Amino acid sequence: MQKTLPADSVGLVTPQTLHFDQPLELDCGRQLSNYDLVYETYGELNAERSNAVLICHALSGDHHAAGYHSPEDRKPGWWETAVGPGKPIDTNRFFVVCSNNLGGCNGSTGPASINPATGRPYGADFPIVTVHDWVRSQARLADALGIERWAAVVGGSLGGMQALQWAVDYPDRLAHAVVIAAAPKLSAQNIAFNEVARQAILSDRDFHDGRYLEHGTAPHRGLALARMLGHITYLSDDAMRAKFGRDLRQTNGKPTFSFDVDFEVESYLRYQGRRFVEHFDANTYLLMTKALDYFDPAAPYSHDLSAALARTEASFLVVSFTSDWRFSPARSREIVRALLDVDKNVTYSEVEASQGHDAFLMNIPAYFDVFSAYMGRVARGVGA
Amino acid sequence: MQKTLPADSVGLVTPQTLHFDQPLELDCGRQLSNYDLVYETYGELNAERSNAVLICHALSGDHHAAGYHSPEDRKPGWWETAVGPGKPIDTNRFFVVCSNNLGGCNGSTGPASINPATGRPYGADFPIVTVHDWVRSQARLADALGIERWAAVVGGSLGGMQALQWAVDYPDRLAHAVVIAAAPKLSAQNIAFNEVARQAILSDRDFHDGRYLEHGTAPHRGLALARMLGHITYLSDDAMRAKFGRDLRQTNGKPTFSFDVDFEVESYLRYQGRRFVEHFDANTYLLMTKALDYFDPAAPYSHDLSAALARTEASFLVVSFTSDWRFSPARSREIVRALLDVDKNVTYSEVEASQGHDAFLMNIPAYFDVFSAYMGRVARGVGA
Repeated sequence: MQKTLPADSVGLVTPQTLHFDQPLELDCGRQLSNYDLVYETYGELNAERSNAVLICHALSGDHHAAGYHSPEDRKPGWWETAVGPGKPIDTNRFFVVCSNNLGGCNGSTGPASINPATGRPYGADFPIVTVHDWVRSQARLADALGIERWAAVVGGSLGGMQALQWAVDYPDRLAHAVVIAAAPKLSAQNIAFNEVARQAILSDRDFHDGRYLEHGTAPHRGLALARMLGHITYLSDDAMRAKFGRDLRQTNGKPTFSFDVDFEVESYLRYQGRRFVEHFDANTYLLMTKALDYFDPAAPYSHDLSAALARTEASFLVVSFTSDWRFSPARSREIVRALLDVDKNVTYSEVEASQGHDAFLMNIPAYFDVFSAYMGRVARGVGA
Repeated sequence: MQKTLPADSVGLVTPQTLHFDQPLELDCGRQLSNYDLVYETYGELNAERSNAVLICHALSGDHHAAGYHSPEDRKPGWWETAVGPGKPIDTNRFFVVCSNNLGGCNGSTGPASINPATGRPYGADFPIVTVHDWVRSQARLADALGIERWAAVVGGSLGGMQALQWAVDYPDRLAHAVVIAAAPKLSAQNIAFNEVARQAILSDRDFHDGRYLEHGTAPHRGLALARMLGHITYLSDDAMRAKFGRDLRQTNGKPTFSFDVDFEVESYLRYQGRRFVEHFDANTYLLMTKALDYFDPAAPYSHDLSAALARTEASFLVVSFTSDWRFSPARSREIVRALLDVDKNVTYSEVEASQGHDAFLMNIPAYFDVFSAYMGRVARGVGA
């Protein structure tokens, strides 16, 4: 019996792949002679080609933002809450594009792809890509799809950073930038967490200097540790308390007096770690954290964020969440202040939410009301 | 040429060891048939034996709280700031005792000690000890030293938890409890960080189920990861920003585009990790984190902290630091509120400090003024 997909879902979707033959020069000084980008689209591009919205994904995301790949899929795309008919990013009005970032592990060229120069997987030889590089590759994708100007570029976390970089790098190619739960650059503490995650992977016995695929293995222990650590930073202390408290896993309420699982939160983290390594590549994780660390759109403008944003032409929606301690509201306010300094249009919403950084993925009324209203304005602006 | 030690230091000190032959029953249901405790003392016990202060150490501390083991020592004991002539814990007035916790790795019986039952190091066979067990072992040490009642039991972080447990377990054996930068029990987030640290050690290729000493090795990579992660939680975001910012390690100001050290904070963490593994035992680290997770003095009192504290007879000084996000002021206020609920004497100081959890080790005037004043009261109470 075929499962009925929810009416407010984009339903069944099929990833598509574009091959790019023109070499891409990267910030690191190296180039990719050719590469693939995998992407999905939802909704219809209008005749004026003006209603396209680009969604940029975060660290562990991919091109599968919404819908289902098969009726049997247990889970929809990662931003199913926000993308679909009648949702904030309304597929009745917008033509939505989401691509897997270069260096990713879900179809776009990345460390697990075959390096044409050697015939072996890139592994650790895959160049370190930056947010700036991603935006450039996404602009080429826009060219290929015949989209001169996005109605909006939208993202949360690392995705929001890409939206911000888009506004700086291609001022005339987007009407709106929606920057959710992001920061203008990482703090020392953010970098520190990333560094511990990287060291966990790099020191795994199965890492083999990044050539683990050729050894028929993968650094699952290190990647699981990185993911566990990540999850702590995605949740607020309060959210963890509400979700797990100090509940003991054992039904008899007694501790194990061992290093087995005692508390629910340990069980949750181990499960998240185990599940993640089944579908995510460790080299990609390394690259993504490095792109985060290096992200600093103000750097080429004498480290003056206002100067960087002075060139932007987009209108901005900036959203933060009160309990997000990974990228706190104070970091979003840095962006807002810099935009105001140079007289840009910006709507800012600081959402009261207990869920921490993960809130950006959730349907929280105070958040989705603003998000929907703003995207309604975007739609009206392009007659969609 | 002999180095002159600072005049406000206790100077040269020599650790002492006491052997205990009477078996110690542990919370886990097992027992230690005999064990050693290593400890140091500073100052003179008065004729009434009333001026003794017990210092309890935190996760990575030991019995060497103050002074120098040799004139060549580059560093004094871990709480040199607070312990010495004229300092908050004034060795002109107090007889100060500090012992290495059972399960430790600096002289007291622990996982690296020889198990008399097997003739081999305990390793993973060392029983998981609790804060309650430590307090019991410290009470026996007090008996051996002829100290019936401590003028004060003092500690920061996990040390503060021991002071709290002392007040609950031996109400008539301490006049004052000084509980600094502690919490009445760990939050889910605290436990989560400990669990990631443990998994880093447990999944290290050199862990060998805890029997690494017999393999002539040690899980240095995992222990270094645990320590790096710990350091992030000891510092505030602001302290990290002030200390490292986003400064690049390389003098030319260019990123490496590799997984080598780019930022100062990465260099700092790697250094802390490397240094720690030279002198700390991974099995001890595992035990310490578990003692933290299990700490919950209210549990035997129907999880009612006020009920647990109702039995205490000590007066309390509770201190927290505004930027401490490991054990935030809110956690200290839980202790204060519970003490007030049952009409106990408590002085509470919430110190404005940017240094995070590590502040408890530092000479911060607003903190040391209160600490000194309170200890002055303790001294006067015992005629010291």
